[in-house]
Parts: sequence; C-alpha cells; structure tokens
Amino acid sequence: MLIEPGELLAKINSPDDLKKLDQTQLVQLCDELRHFIIDNVSVYGGHFGASLGVVELTVALHYVFNTPKDQLVWDVGHQAYGHKILTGRRDIFHTNRVYKGMSGFPKRKESEYDTFGVGHSSTSISAAVGMAVASKYKGDDEQQHVAIIGDGAMTGGLAFEGMNHAGVSNSNILIILNDNCMSIDPNVGALKDYLTDITTSHTYNKVKDEVWNLLGKISKFGPSARDVVAKVENGIKSALLSQSNLFESLNLRYFGPVDGHDINHLVSVLDDLKDIKGPKILHCVTTKGKGYGPAEKGNKTTWHAPGKFDKVTGEIRKKVHETPQPPKYQDVFGHTLVELAEKNDKITGITPAMPSGSSMNIMMEAMPDRAFDVGIAEQHAVTFSAGQATQGLIPFCNIYSTFMQRAFDQVIHDVCIQDLPVVFCLDRAGFAGADGPTHHGAYDIAYMRCIPNMIVSAPMNEAELRNLMYTAQLPREGKAFTIRYPRGQGVMPEWKTPMEEIEIGTGRKIKDGEDVAILTIGHIGNYAVEACEKLEKEGLNPAHYDMRFVKPLDEKMLHEVFKKYKKVVTVEDGCLMGGFGSAIIEFMAENNYSAQVKRLGIPDAIIEHGEQIELQKECGFDPDGIAEAVISMTEGVLTK
Amino acid sequence: MLIEPGELLAKINSPDDLKKLDQTQLVQLCDELRHFIIDNVSVYGGHFGASLGVVELTVALHYVFNTPKDQLVWDVGHQAYGHKILTGRRDIFHTNRVYKGMSGFPKRKESEYDTFGVGHSSTSISAAVGMAVASKYKGDDEQQHVAIIGDGAMTGGLAFEGMNHAGVSNSNILIILNDNCMSIDPNVGALKDYLTDITTSHTYNKVKDEVWNLLGKISKFGPSARDVVAKVENGIKSALLSQSNLFESLNLRYFGPVDGHDINHLVSVLDDLKDIKGPKILHCVTTKGKGYGPAEKGNKTTWHAPGKFDKVTGEIRKKVHETPQPPKYQDVFGHTLVELAEKNDKITGITPAMPSGSSMNIMMEAMPDRAFDVGIAEQHAVTFSAGQATQGLIPFCNIYSTFMQRAFDQVIHDVCIQDLPVVFCLDRAGFAGADGPTHHGAYDIAYMRCIPNMIVSAPMNEAELRNLMYTAQLPREGKAFTIRYPRGQGVMPEWKTPMEEIEIGTGRKIKDGEDVAILTIGHIGNYAVEACEKLEKEGLNPAHYDMRFVKPLDEKMLHEVFKKYKKVVTVEDGCLMGGFGSAIIEFMAENNYSAQVKRLGIPDAIIEHGEQIELQKECGFDPDGIAEAVISMTEGVLTK
Repeated sequence: MLIEPGELLAKINSPDDLKKLDQTQLVQLCDELRHFIIDNVSVYGGHFGASLGVVELTVALHYVFNTPKDQLVWDVGHQAYGHKILTGRRDIFHTNRVYKGMSGFPKRKESEYDTFGVGHSSTSISAAVGMAVASKYKGDDEQQHVAIIGDGAMTGGLAFEGMNHAGVSNSNILIILNDNCMSIDPNVGALKDYLTDITTSHTYNKVKDEVWNLLGKISKFGPSARDVVAKVENGIKSALLSQSNLFESLNLRYFGPVDGHDINHLVSVLDDLKDIKGPKILHCVTTKGKGYGPAEKGNKTTWHAPGKFDKVTGEIRKKVHETPQPPKYQDVFGHTLVELAEKNDKITGITPAMPSGSSMNIMMEAMPDRAFDVGIAEQHAVTFSAGQATQGLIPFCNIYSTFMQRAFDQVIHDVCIQDLPVVFCLDRAGFAGADGPTHHGAYDIAYMRCIPNMIVSAPMNEAELRNLMYTAQLPREGKAFTIRYPRGQGVMPEWKTPMEEIEIGTGRKIKDGEDVAILTIGHIGNYAVEACEKLEKEGLNPAHYDMRFVKPLDEKMLHEVFKKYKKVVTVEDGCLMGGFGSAIIEFMAENNYSAQVKRLGIPDAIIEHGEQIELQKECGFDPDGIAEAVISMTEGVLTK
Repeated sequence: MLIEPGELLAKINSPDDLKKLDQTQLVQLCDELRHFIIDNVSVYGGHFGASLGVVELTVALHYVFNTPKDQLVWDVGHQAYGHKILTGRRDIFHTNRVYKGMSGFPKRKESEYDTFGVGHSSTSISAAVGMAVASKYKGDDEQQHVAIIGDGAMTGGLAFEGMNHAGVSNSNILIILNDNCMSIDPNVGALKDYLTDITTSHTYNKVKDEVWNLLGKISKFGPSARDVVAKVENGIKSALLSQSNLFESLNLRYFGPVDGHDINHLVSVLDDLKDIKGPKILHCVTTKGKGYGPAEKGNKTTWHAPGKFDKVTGEIRKKVHETPQPPKYQDVFGHTLVELAEKNDKITGITPAMPSGSSMNIMMEAMPDRAFDVGIAEQHAVTFSAGQATQGLIPFCNIYSTFMQRAFDQVIHDVCIQDLPVVFCLDRAGFAGADGPTHHGAYDIAYMRCIPNMIVSAPMNEAELRNLMYTAQLPREGKAFTIRYPRGQGVMPEWKTPMEEIEIGTGRKIKDGEDVAILTIGHIGNYAVEACEKLEKEGLNPAHYDMRFVKPLDEKMLHEVFKKYKKVVTVEDGCLMGGFGSAIIEFMAENNYSAQVKRLGIPDAIIEHGEQIELQKECGFDPDGIAEAVISMTEGVLTK
C-alpha cells in the first residue's frame, strides 16, 4: 500500500524539483514531508523521532546546497528519512528496513545522494573532512561538505578527533550540530550540559552583546575611560570571540544557536554560511518528534523507533499473544543484574548510551549510584570499567556486539593485558535484523576469542544467561568474561530460574545421537533442537552439544565428540572466519583428530538487512539449513 | 653496571623517603633524578625526552600526594621513568626494557604505585574516573586520583570521552595536562593551536586580569558606570570563567598555565588543588628533554628514544656495520610510497602521529598537500581515509598494528561495509620488541581477516613489500588492502627493485621438498629459510611456501600442498587463535583434506617485552623452533 504524498511532495523526485519551489512554499512542503513520514512509519514502523526533528533542516539543506555535488554526511542516519524521500526514494519508502527493501540508513549503494554509509555514530565529521580535503586537492573550490551530527553523537571521541583536524584543515566544511538533547535515550555528560547552557541561557550571545554595550557606554566617560577601553578591547574581543566557546577553541567558527524548525531562517542562515570560507559549525536546536504530539511531548526514547502505531490516538500497537511469551534476553539481563547486585555489592553496571536498549535502565533506576550511562563513548565505557576493576569492583559493561568493535583496543590494552575481571555483556550478537550490516554483531566471537585472558561464552536460553551472569560475578583471579546474546526473545516464558554456577569451559550435551554431532554456541542452539526434530522424521539421529563456551573450549567434551563422531556440524550466529567453528577445528588440528567438519555461520560477505530469520536462512543456518547440512553430510550413511 | 645515584636520590626507596626531605632539598633531588635518568639512558637506551620533561612534576606529585593510596595514572607511560625510580625501582632501572627486566611502561604487576598499565595513549582520564567513582562508591572521600596526560594524548578521542564524563562525575579527579607541544613527533591539530595560544600569549589570564582592572577603573567614573558594571559583571564573569576555556566548557575547573619546571611552585599549586573538590585540570607547561642540552634544544623526535648516546658530546651511538645492511621496512615503505605517488596522483598518505616512526615523513616532506599527520587519532585516520576514498583517491593509511586495534570499528563500518579501496599499512606487526605487550602487533591477522571485503597480505622481504604496495594502488573495484610488516630490518641490502603486480591471492613456492610443507606468512618466512638450511644438515628436506596472502588464500597452491603433503607446519608472527594457521585449517576443513597440521605463532598468552628474537624463541617460532617442529613431526619418517 503506497501512502499518498501531499501535492507539493508528490512532484519532488529530486532536489532539483525542490529548488523549483518558491521559498514561500517550503513551510507547506515541510508539513507534507512530516505527514508523509508519520503516515508511513505509523503503518510500516521504523525510526521516527529523529527524522521528524530535522524536517526543516533537511528541506533547507537540499534547497540551499547543490546536492549531490555538494555532499551531505548524515551522522548515524536515523534522521535521514526526509533526505531519502526528497532524493528519489519516496516511492520505495514503504519498503524501509524490509528484507531486500530500502535501507534504514544512508547507504552509498542506494543513492548518489548518500555520500557516506552510516549506522554507528560520530563518523560524519571525519568523513566530511576526508571528502573536503580530497576536493581541495583536486582543485575544486566550489564543492561544499556538510556533516549533520547530533549532540549525542558529538560525545563520541571520533567526533572530537574529527573536529581537531577540521579546525586546521583549511577546508570549507560546515558542521551542523543538531542539538535535541537526545541520543536514543537522553544525552548525558559535560558537553550536553554545556550545550544546554549556551542554548537556554544564551549566555554566550548575551554577554557578547553586553560587552559591546558596555564598551560603547563607558566611552562617553571621557578620554581616560576610552584609553582603558582601547587597551582591553582587543583582549576582550579575542577572549570572547576566539575562546569563549568550545568550538571556537578548536578553530571552528561558531554560529547559533538557531531554531531548527524555522525553515525560512534556516534557508537564510545556510545561504550565508555557504559563502563563508573555512571550517564552521552551526548550532541548531531541534526537538525530536517535532510536529507529532505524542512523540514531541511523550517519552522521546519510546518514540525513537516506536514500531507501528495509530497515528490518530498515538497508541503504539503491541502484538497480542494468547500464551505467555518468553522474555527478551535484554530484560533477563536487566533484571538479573539487579538481582545479583542486591547480593554482591561489588557489582556495577555500565552502558554507553543504551540504557533502554540494553535494559541497564532497570539497574540505573534501582541503584543509581552503581549504574552508569556514559553517553556514546564505548572506548571510555571499557576503560572506565577497567579503572573500576582495579579497585576490586566487578563491572558489568554492556555494549552491543557491533559497538564493541569501537572499544576493541580498550578490551585488549586496558582490560586483558592487565588481566582485570571485567564482565562484558555483548547485546545484539548475531544478526541485528532490520538495522542491517552496520549493526550486525557478526565479528565478536572472532575478535574477542583471539585476546588472551578472555573467557567467551554464549547462553542458549534465559536460564543459561542467568547462570553465566551468576558465574561471571563470582570471585576470580583476573580474566575478563564475555557473555554474548542476541536481540530479542529467548525461549523460556518461565525464565526466573534459580541461578547456579557453571564450571567455566564446560558445555552441555543436549542429546546423544549417531553418525553426526552438531556443536552449537548460544541461542542458535535452539535451531539445532528444531533441526534435530525435523531430522528424526527423516530417520536421522544426530547428537547435539551446546558448547556454551567458545573459550576455554570444553576439551573433555570435544574429545568425546571427536572420538565418537567422524562428521561434525558447527553452528554459530557469527562470522565463519576465525569464529566458533574455527576454534573447534583448531582443537581438532592440535589433537590430531580427523573428521569431516561443516561450519555453518555468517559467510565472508556483507549481509544486508531483514528479519533475523530471513538472514539466517539466507546464510543457511536457520533450522532448515542446519537439517540440510546434516542430511548432506550423511548422504553416504543414508544410502548405506 | 649499576649507575650511582646522587646522595639524596640514593636514600629514596619509596615516596615515604621522599616526604622526609625538606622542600628546600627538592631542587637538588630533581637535579639528581634528572642526571640518574641521563646516566642510565645514555648507557642502556630507552625513552628519554618525556621523562626528563616531567622530573619536577614527578617529584612534586609524590611529595604532595599520599601515594600509593592516592593514585597516579600516567598516560602512555613514556614519561614515567622518574616515577619508577622514586617508587622502589632505582636498582633495577638498568634492566629497563630488557628481556625479563623492568618494563618501559607503568605496569600493575610491577608495583603498587603503577595503578594502571599503559602504553597506548589517552586512557588515563577514563581509568582515573573509574577509580574515583569506585572510591566514592566505597565511601572513601580522602583518596585522590590524578591523571597525567600529554597534549598529544589529549587529541585521542578517548581522552575527550573521559573528560565528558569526568566533568559530570562529581569526583575529585585532577587531570594534569603536561603540555610540551609534542607527542613523539610535534603535536598537530586545532587543540594544540589552542593550547599554544593560551600558553604563549596568556590571552586567557591576561584578559581575565584586564577585565577585572577595567571593572575596577570604570567604577571610579561614578554611579552610572557602576550600574553598567553591575549589570554586566555577572555576565562577563560567567563568560570568562565558565565558558572562556575549552576545559571549563566541559565543567573541569581550569588552573594554569604553570611552569612545569618550577618545583616549588608545583608543590604549592598541587597542595592547593588537593583540597579543591570536584573535577579539575592543571595546565602544566613543560619542555621535552628539559635539562639535557642536546635533547632540549635539538630534534625532540630524535631524542624521544635516542638509543644509547655519549652523554658528554650528545652524540648518538650508531652501530657501525662493515657490510651494507638491509633497510628497515619502514624506510622501504616511506620511499616506495613517494615513488608510487609520483606516478599515481590519486595516492595520498595518512599517519596518526607517527610520521617519523612509520617514515610517512618522507612523503610529508616531498608532497605536503597529499600526506597528512592527523595526530593521535587512529579512528579519525581511518574514517578520514574512507572519506577520501569515496572521492576516488587511494589513501595509504599507515598505522601500527597495535594501534589499529583502536580503529577496528572504522575499518569495518566506514571502509569495508562500504567496500572502499583504502590501503592499510600495518607497521610493527608481530612482536614490537622492547615496548612489550601493549605494543605487540599480535592480533591483526585474526581481526583483519574476519572482515569481508578485506585483502590481507604480508611481504617476506623488501621487494615483496614494494610489489604489494604497487599492487595495492592499481585501480580496483572496492576491497581494502592490508599489508602488514614488522618493525626493523628486512633482508635485502639492494632493496630498490623494479616493482611488479602480484596477482591478489597468490603465494610463492620457495622450495619443493618431501614429507613436510612449511607454510609461512610475511617476514617470518626468512626464519623458515634458515630452518630449512639447518634441517638439510639433518637430512630433512621440507617444502616451503610463502603464502603472501592470508586472504584471499592461494587455494590453487593449497590444493597442491594438501595433495602432496600429509604434514604441514604453519608459521606466523601473530596470535594462533583465529590467525593465519587457522585460515589454513579452515581451508582444509572446507575441502575435506586430512593432514597433520602444526601451527606455530604467538600462543594465547600475554608475551612480555624483550628483543623480537628472544620473544620469538620463547614462543617457538624462531629458526630453531621451526626446525624443531619439523623434526618432531617427521620423527616417524626418520625412524622409518
């Protein structure tokens, strides 16, 4: 079902069409664009608040700048729906985030207007500086480069590194700080307080004005006062203009704050800025969810990506289930952490800007002095945890698998080389689903297991997650402890099981069997259970082991497996190169076993977006894929 | 040979002894400490300039603070020699950086005064915030936490993330900004310009003073002037005190700049700061190499770690060789890059703060508009390169293997998911040597090869490095291209060979053989050559293949190998878990070969510092180790 766009929007298939409008029509266009987004997202789901917040900014940018020659880099990209709709993707917008459909993020393959693929935060300034420097090197003085970055993304260290270079790059880069006091959750940290201060009190501009007034007024008190003025004027000017602002300190000319919802003012400001040479920043104040009451006034975190909703009542549609459903792994994590922390006062919780996504908010509410949201700052989250661990605390540092890539060095350098007992909970391990390749937690098994002093585990269900968390907080000498689990539901509606210690490096035999052994790690083990049920109907009876630990491996169990079975299938929801299956064949090689091993998992390719199960099927490790792998291996056996 | 300390220093075995000195004796102690460092480093080598620069600061910190209860976190740690000498390690100082000797960096295992292990930059603030938060949670209000960080390290995004949290952490953390305008090379970027400005012109303090003067003077012009003053005073105050400084913007109270070589002033300032609650920063201006003429006035990069030198003449001792020596891989890289860039105008060069270490300085001098030092900012270096690649350039982004860990996400997210043809030159791959575990390039094969759209290669010698670089810059659709090579010399005194294209994913057969095939990757292949020579004398004749590419593997060659040989030894200068050897056995498993495979490389453990060859021997992949592996595999053959 195609949603009908408004009359102006219907005619806009590219920014060229937008430029044909009279500036007086832009207010209406913004209104139509906003409604088109509301109409679509309410029916099809997707990210919501961020795109509504930048409707005017998006229209103004494409109206003023000569895209695609001028290059817009959207940071993170949650907010780029308007950009996509205005750049030829209005008619496929309803396929947003659907398997084989439009990506939810800007993506180079999708459009020449998407200059840089995004998903993770804080990359836009660095990328834009790279483009601008290239442009300058090629002798193109006309091309403009604009990075649009939120105040949340601005806390990521990469953004600071980018600004530090931008300020001396002598390029015409324009940074637009889209300040809405939010990332997905409310933004935190000193920078956010600073931005709030200069925005709400307007101290900066007010003082600037008042000093000028002062200088004017005192000059009427005669020549000696004028002398005083003359003497200090340059000093004051330089203090106020060059140093009175964090961004000016970094040699970025600061403009603003401006109202990001005043389309006419934005057009005029951007028009002016286009002609100002050098690196500069425009501080734009916007409201997430702007123009849709429930999102603008309600809980902004809920309305970041609300799922489908009734656009009239603002009621978010929840699936109704007739039977009790298993909880999300996230909620099991959140509640279990509090349960453990109540008994063990050494436990703390750390999240980099994902309190609601990871359910760390449960501990933050219950124990505000022991649970920390450090903002979008994965590197800091890990080193901060390491600092705590040196003092005898047991930090549970919860980071999405895909974002842990950003703290890889800190895990090695600050945690594992020092052999500190930090617990890493890697949320959204495996396929992220609709968010696509930038968000898949595909590599963590490979990149975590290669680090010494690191335990790597994954629970097959809720009870196992609880037991692993319980085990991870028991006193131990050193060793970081990684627990990876996927986005979404587990399998146990009655999940609140009593917790017990698991011996580190031990797996579980799920079932005995013949001819073939299936070795699985984590939640995906449930697919093997399904596969085994299917295979039974075909007369096959593979064994199934839930290895539970990638590192250390359960060597006793593996000796049993390789002594008994000459055909082994490994299954993991992670990259095959260097992953769990590779760990198994490393064991095999070290122990001189010979067996036929088929490794199932994510192949060496970028897998696009879609439902988790669609992607798993594509990669051949859904229940059917596992069953087929077993059948293909046993064909010799069957024909015997 | 133990160097004799001066009379005061001789009595100091811990900071308690230091505290017994009268403050008037500190100048002499600083002098003795400085000479002890000069005497030792001139004879034994090591880092130099940084520690000389913080002699006064080190003495003052241990004199004022109650270490080890109060916790000092030294960023990077190059500068911590004085700290080590004052904290009980004077008598082992001559074993600095020697195998089994004292570490060149602070290290928790070595001393309770080393609160946090370092080596990579920009971690100290995050770690100290973690400690301070733990201290606060435990109800200890007395404990002090001090992060000592250079202006170079301050450009790393992690430092900014740490400050963003420190500013709202409500902890008593003191950040000491050791501003000497240097990292190893001269510091770069907008922040450095800013620091130079507030230091050299003293604009900030001068303006502050002058505004106060102004306010005082104009008040004598009568009541109406006083009204004006009253009206704006608060505004000006808030502008100047709360916002006129980058650090104050982040809610860190800013003090300074102070002369970091005035020991008495430092003691008094630190004494005051100890009693000021909340997060604060002391801007300390120091001179790298202070107190040793050649280092203070000469090339500071050279004197960062000069090796052994004549302390009287300042002449750095160079090894004299009678025969022409092979060049360093670094220099081959530097000269070859310029050679290629002269012919291919798409090539650019990027280094994060390692122009001299990587030899990128050769291109920076020859082509200043195409080669970029972006400061200590590995993440930015990669995303900046990605931005350039979107514009059709071919960036050669040179990052030490160990530092590339910090840009892992950017390699995945900004380069490989977008399939951009960036060239990554991973310098110091394998064991770094004396720098130890924080600097070993142990993991790159494992963490780079698991990324799709990534080519991973390693040259066995200078000609191969040149050919790989030549190949990497040829036009291709997508695919990042990694070339890893070790620190130090190659094997070809006549290295300037004509360059030729290598077919991507092809290896080289070094020699045919019998029974056993040795598969190597990179420079370590030369050890296999040596091993083969030794083995020949024992009557063994293994084959040797230089695989050249970890990814894609030369499958044709591997089919040949596994068809012919049932015993295979793989050798790599990298971690065994998920590394090159694992790639080989993955191939084996996928193709149903069965062979006995022995994988040599870095085991799953933290390997300490020492000469590269010492560490390789320890891990069993020096030439003898390789030979022994072959012998142990062929024992059956020999007895036949």
